[in-house]
Amino acid sequence: MSSSFGDSVRISIFGESHGEAIGVVLDNLPAGCSIDEEQLALQMARRAPGRDLSSTPRSEGDRVRIVSGLLNGKTTGAPLCGMIENTNTRSSDYESLRVLPRPGHADYTGAVRYKGANDVRGGGHFSGRLTAPLTFAGAVCRQILFVHGIRIGAHALRIASVSDAAFDPVEIPDALLERLSTEYFSLIDRSIETAMREEIEAARKCTDSVGGVVECAVTGVPAGIGSPMFYGVENVLSSILFGIPAVKGVEFGNGFAAASLHGSENNDAFTAENGQVKTRTNHCGGILGGITTGMPLILRAAFKPTPSIGREQNTVNLTTLQNEPLVVHGRHDPCIVPRAIPVVEAAVAVGLVNLMAERGQL
Amino acid sequence: MSSSFGDSVRISIFGESHGEAIGVVLDNLPAGCSIDEEQLALQMARRAPGRDLSSTPRSEGDRVRIVSGLLNGKTTGAPLCGMIENTNTRSSDYESLRVLPRPGHADYTGAVRYKGANDVRGGGHFSGRLTAPLTFAGAVCRQILFVHGIRIGAHALRIASVSDAAFDPVEIPDALLERLSTEYFSLIDRSIETAMREEIEAARKCTDSVGGVVECAVTGVPAGIGSPMFYGVENVLSSILFGIPAVKGVEFGNGFAAASLHGSENNDAFTAENGQVKTRTNHCGGILGGITTGMPLILRAAFKPTPSIGREQNTVNLTTLQNEPLVVHGRHDPCIVPRAIPVVEAAVAVGLVNLMAERGQL
Amino acid sequence: MSSSFGDSVRISIFGESHGEAIGVVLDNLPAGCSIDEEQLALQMARRAPGRDLSSTPRSEGDRVRIVSGLLNGKTTGAPLCGMIENTNTRSSDYESLRVLPRPGHADYTGAVRYKGANDVRGGGHFSGRLTAPLTFAGAVCRQILFVHGIRIGAHALRIASVSDAAFDPVEIPDALLERLSTEYFSLIDRSIETAMREEIEAARKCTDSVGGVVECAVTGVPAGIGSPMFYGVENVLSSILFGIPAVKGVEFGNGFAAASLHGSENNDAFTAENGQVKTRTNHCGGILGGITTGMPLILRAAFKPTPSIGREQNTVNLTTLQNEPLVVHGRHDPCIVPRAIPVVEAAVAVGLVNLMAERGQL
Amino acid sequence: MSSSFGDSVRISIFGESHGEAIGVVLDNLPAGCSIDEEQLALQMARRAPGRDLSSTPRSEGDRVRIVSGLLNGKTTGAPLCGMIENTNTRSSDYESLRVLPRPGHADYTGAVRYKGANDVRGGGHFSGRLTAPLTFAGAVCRQILFVHGIRIGAHALRIASVSDAAFDPVEIPDALLERLSTEYFSLIDRSIETAMREEIEAARKCTDSVGGVVECAVTGVPAGIGSPMFYGVENVLSSILFGIPAVKGVEFGNGFAAASLHGSENNDAFTAENGQVKTRTNHCGGILGGITTGMPLILRAAFKPTPSIGREQNTVNLTTLQNEPLVVHGRHDPCIVPRAIPVVEAAVAVGLVNLMAERGQL
Repeated sequence: MSSSFGDSVRISIFGESHGEAIGVVLDNLPAGCSIDEEQLALQMARRAPGRDLSSTPRSEGDRVRIVSGLLNGKTTGAPLCGMIENTNTRSSDYESLRVLPRPGHADYTGAVRYKGANDVRGGGHFSGRLTAPLTFAGAVCRQILFVHGIRIGAHALRIASVSDAAFDPVEIPDALLERLSTEYFSLIDRSIETAMREEIEAARKCTDSVGGVVECAVTGVPAGIGSPMFYGVENVLSSILFGIPAVKGVEFGNGFAAASLHGSENNDAFTAENGQVKTRTNHCGGILGGITTGMPLILRAAFKPTPSIGREQNTVNLTTLQNEPLVVHGRHDPCIVPRAIPVVEAAVAVGLVNLMAERGQL
Repeated sequence: MSSSFGDSVRISIFGESHGEAIGVVLDNLPAGCSIDEEQLALQMARRAPGRDLSSTPRSEGDRVRIVSGLLNGKTTGAPLCGMIENTNTRSSDYESLRVLPRPGHADYTGAVRYKGANDVRGGGHFSGRLTAPLTFAGAVCRQILFVHGIRIGAHALRIASVSDAAFDPVEIPDALLERLSTEYFSLIDRSIETAMREEIEAARKCTDSVGGVVECAVTGVPAGIGSPMFYGVENVLSSILFGIPAVKGVEFGNGFAAASLHGSENNDAFTAENGQVKTRTNHCGGILGGITTGMPLILRAAFKPTPSIGREQNTVNLTTLQNEPLVVHGRHDPCIVPRAIPVVEAAVAVGLVNLMAERGQL
Repeated sequence: MSSSFGDSVRISIFGESHGEAIGVVLDNLPAGCSIDEEQLALQMARRAPGRDLSSTPRSEGDRVRIVSGLLNGKTTGAPLCGMIENTNTRSSDYESLRVLPRPGHADYTGAVRYKGANDVRGGGHFSGRLTAPLTFAGAVCRQILFVHGIRIGAHALRIASVSDAAFDPVEIPDALLERLSTEYFSLIDRSIETAMREEIEAARKCTDSVGGVVECAVTGVPAGIGSPMFYGVENVLSSILFGIPAVKGVEFGNGFAAASLHGSENNDAFTAENGQVKTRTNHCGGILGGITTGMPLILRAAFKPTPSIGREQNTVNLTTLQNEPLVVHGRHDPCIVPRAIPVVEAAVAVGLVNLMAERGQL
Repeated sequence: MSSSFGDSVRISIFGESHGEAIGVVLDNLPAGCSIDEEQLALQMARRAPGRDLSSTPRSEGDRVRIVSGLLNGKTTGAPLCGMIENTNTRSSDYESLRVLPRPGHADYTGAVRYKGANDVRGGGHFSGRLTAPLTFAGAVCRQILFVHGIRIGAHALRIASVSDAAFDPVEIPDALLERLSTEYFSLIDRSIETAMREEIEAARKCTDSVGGVVECAVTGVPAGIGSPMFYGVENVLSSILFGIPAVKGVEFGNGFAAASLHGSENNDAFTAENGQVKTRTNHCGGILGGITTGMPLILRAAFKPTPSIGREQNTVNLTTLQNEPLVVHGRHDPCIVPRAIPVVEAAVAVGLVNLMAERGQL
């Protein structure tokens, strides 16, 4: 309920942006799995801000201290808790949020939901900073999945009007996923990076922001994972993906584009290859009836543009109920998509660990 | 797990397309709520096939027998079970499905998931027929929500290349939702019905099928419903919407279109109206940080084209592992979107009842 | 929530005593398990009333119609729903329950909980009759467990002041569990049956009732099932056992008696037997740290005396809030323990199926 | 699953006895509740060892650092995480546990369950030390319940053969619960303390241990809390109480004693007092049909004697599978009951917060 996810491997995320610490507990992990802390650090670094012009100038450490559940580099099976101390916070920037809610943010809805008791500093528990423990949880889970031959990688399919090449949904080399899942601002076609950065920079210059789409692929998931109705791959993954702030749409395979196709175009013919059942195409994104086909999983998450923009906006003074102009100060990413890529991978990893565990496959 | 949904009001759907009966149990409903059985029947009729050329020629009764939980027209608070006897099934049509899985269907993934033990007749538990109990559950839930001033209505926003008018996300009259939620093949602009039917008929004539997008709106939900992270409105609703067969994408507010916008375009300015906080626009679809703003909820679900098409397709003989051509016989909707409209409304109703109950609002 | 149980295999029980039907849905059962309907009927018969003097003179059929999830004698993996039509109800007996709540019954608490909307006829959803679908669910689950070598049997350890022999917790022959789990009024030492029946009959004659203790044993559960803290064997089994009406206490192994022992008396020494780790004694009831040791599970459930007694009692008129005398008419078991034996076995079977499934062992 | 509990307010406990830290996350707490940190510290102190001769000579600090969810003394509604750093651990004491499992402990079952990967130092995640975060979680929850007029207090009803006075189940003064819930080694009749301590000391002197029974009462719970079948008060509370290490039995009201009574003795007559419905007696422990009557809740938990005893015991060498004698060194409580009293209160508080929240009463 709320900040917990998962029925087999349950993650419970805690913390507020400017509180003492943030972190996550992973309950019911399989025991004896090797966890490489350097790989965890790499994923944390991919999400961390301050790496280049497209993100905010803060430098968060995001060093995770594992306080339980890991012994001599292996999961003990007991809950694994990772904590990140909060440092370098400048809370004074956010004093007015209780009175003047920022458009596009959860300031207003959070105030109603929590009767004004929520911690608004830095967005509190709604902050994008809370994707750090999710990234950590995903970094643990992806290492567990890796041993079972599962690879996860994502990229910025689109930022504003600039598009990257899409995954070939039928054939995705391990090397590509390996590269995408370890680089910063992951792109299939690196040559469009400059154009994307220019869009972001252009938005920044006019105190605005841009959104985008992250596409994620997973290979190596065996056929038969997931269940019909409410515990299919799409239910589980969408349910965690919408937990990433700013995600407003999730689609699998052809997704919304399928709505314009004929059945004869969208169906994936089955074929036998080396004694294995495959599909010639993969318009379904590796999922039929909620259950994996054995082909790559393909999904996309749409991110709205960062709501924090420097220009003046209209809001309501919650004390006086009068309309007032608002200028949001502070440090903001003009585009969160580059940093969101590892978060999408992480959410997918946590979701998949649950789906695999539920089938007794971990 | 699987065919159960909901943490506060839990529905548990059972049945196979050509089994003895299908149905649903709703556990933990509030007690004392009036339920009008005629309104239930109306929703069942909206989903039922055989109403016009765009759906299959079968005539399913879909009369629901309520065997528990309702006394003198009111919920007793004990689990409410609704059952639909299966009749008029022609199982011989489906004999070959175990050997020759239909492209785009769950025949293959179901066989792997259930080790060949699943009931394949008519698609078994994967059948679109299982949306009947979901529709029933939603019809119960929407009556409970109605008393709290909540209205739900959906329409075919797009079928193939023909589009209906979209909801004005700021101002949605009760009368519109009332009309949409009671008519068959619901459309905001009824003048485009002919064009849509022509697209469907064209597809049928060339033994093909088409998909589409259903848009749903909900008014009257108070601000403050939902929770951050994993129990927000988007998590809960997407998680049940992907339980409808053929849904491959779900988006809220601007959804995927938000990815191309600037923050200054996508943010919704707050404004005070008659002492109430509102937003001037509603690009967020009534949800910020997973929590309702009090503005209408707007969401869309993308349906892939019906996979059952009459023309020859390629598949694999699961016994011989040889490729074989396949012609699917039997009765199929060339477009399920018209019948899916009440199902989307139903799924949203079940999701919302859970979100409201979790906040102690029912 | 409420009438649903289980995180891996979820059962959802519905129905009211004098409603149209009662039943249960089992969601997420393993596929391909053989289910013998005669064995199901046998378990239903053990619970059914009307078998002898110690139970009520009604004759309920309790024939279960399986409407889904079973095909050619095997589970399909889709939800299995079993329904029992209600017949032979005499509702007029219960008219006054809304005004004059019966001591020891849920009439009053149910009225508060459900704001007077609950179905009081025959106790409604609180009725002991609802143990019929639980018995059915357990009868399905025990057949699944049987294939994995697991045997479950219970007996009336005590009725009023008469005690049966207790299980030898270390060595429990299959034949004993086989006998107990198929006979009516199961007893280890059949010679005490007469004495027990006399106690029951004596209570009946003075329009009174008696309680008792059911002891249950399970053999064949492998070591390592269950998890520490809140998903141990004791948590899961107690949580379902308290779902049986009239159960007021649950204990494992030495249970409450352990409170009076020294550690040196209560500890179970480990020993190796044929390369297997065992314990010489089994005071812990086969559970250490919530996890199975591989030794027999031993548990006991205490049943309060049937609250329905023929003699005059004091109650409150809920309309006038005046004290009033009450004589409960109708048919009542002076002791429910004999019929509760298969229900305890059933609850344990449902709990164990969940514990085994959670460990990927089914 | 495993170390998480609760469907409305979910607690997730983490940590291993000799790991870096232990703690708990409380997800979905109501917002705006005042939390007094001194009262939290008091509860932690009641559970902490080293207070007197009956507990181990270690002095654990058990100072809880609240890293999230609390701002200016009030819950923010975001997950509240409390952490306790581990200090003063002497891990060398426990080196041999992997090879020679201690009788009565989870060393063997934990090894099987976690394939030998679990942290055995100090009992790891199975350690009684993990009741510290549970005590903390309960201390938070009891403050929330207190505002709603709910009081919780427990005492050592029995240690070995010495018994305290029992609660009068009908009339329990606030002052008594106030005293019990704040004192160390809580007793209704303090005059029996010496006799109890002598039993404990006698056991210690012969390198043995003793068990006991903790009785807990709760007043102020309104009628109508809980649901029939599987979400009643007994299901929920037993399910969390069995999460306390060493608990082997749980009973409510008359519990196991009810099995020997007649219905006429065990039924509680209703009566009207000042316009309120009450029961003259309270043999049901304030619960009928799983739902509260409004009378005090009365429950008992049986604790087995501490399995860690100094005298030689028999065990199996898991490497050689040979029987071997074992002498457990280290520091052990000869009786954990005194320190378990606040833990029982805490478990009940966490359970009740869930039951109240589920009914929308918090």
